[in-house]
Amino acid sequence: MSDRFAVEAVASVPILEAMGIRVVEARSGYAVAELPPEPNVNHFGVTYAGSLFSVAEMLGGVLSLVSFDLDGMVPVVKASSIRFRRPALGVIRAEVSLSEDEIARVRTDAQATGKGEFELEAVLTDGTGEVVATTVGTYQIRRF
Amino acid sequence: MSDRFAVEAVASVPILEAMGIRVVEARSGYAVAELPPEPNVNHFGVTYAGSLFSVAEMLGGVLSLVSFDLDGMVPVVKASSIRFRRPALGVIRAEVSLSEDEIARVRTDAQATGKGEFELEAVLTDGTGEVVATTVGTYQIRRF
Repeated sequence: MSDRFAVEAVASVPILEAMGIRVVEARSGYAVAELPPEPNVNHFGVTYAGSLFSVAEMLGGVLSLVSFDLDGMVPVVKASSIRFRRPALGVIRAEVSLSEDEIARVRTDAQATGKGEFELEAVLTDGTGEVVATTVGTYQIRRF
Repeated sequence: MSDRFAVEAVASVPILEAMGIRVVEARSGYAVAELPPEPNVNHFGVTYAGSLFSVAEMLGGVLSLVSFDLDGMVPVVKASSIRFRRPALGVIRAEVSLSEDEIARVRTDAQATGKGEFELEAVLTDGTGEVVATTVGTYQIRRF
């Protein structure tokens, strides 16, 4: 994904831009974004749950954008769950990946039925590599 | 909860304030907050998933604040899941409730062990009363 697309993916949702979320890598089947502490820290000095959720969730859209031909289709999140494992301090990195086989399966489903569904696990780590949270999202690419 | 406390609960997390989240009612066992469209809409004109998550999630903290004596204790979210049921348009209202029996049970656990855990379901509705999303969060009040 070009830098322009990465910037546009975040800028298309003003509140993601307000969180300071930045896509740092995105290619077919793989995407990474970063979340800075400010303005996401709560009054205990740790990053707010909703911001952690957001940096993980938005990667489903970014990954769809770079992995599928979305001409006439739109990525939609159907459900998501998050587990908070330890207090999140400093810049948080969120990472997702989807296998080429799974991408091919979703693409085939979408072409055949107008809808392709997939699950995406995100791992959120701090600057020392410690896992602070994990998410599992259910996404669809759908014809509109 | 006084208006001052309600304002402080949101203002303690800058990004919640940036979302325009407003606590509209909070008493023991019951809390309601509202989320305006701006700046939470995405480029399809519907409210972003992460903002819906946030307005529901933060009610766990608000409800803890008004339902428990938090002197020396802090509310913590351990996990949360959200189901997106239809596109969210306009002002979204999130509502949670916890029975007096459950509040008493959590309080007893917290006093006995330093930790009281509870589940909280939030229902998110649009201006016509249609459910746009539902969440289930697992919270703890913990001695620090």
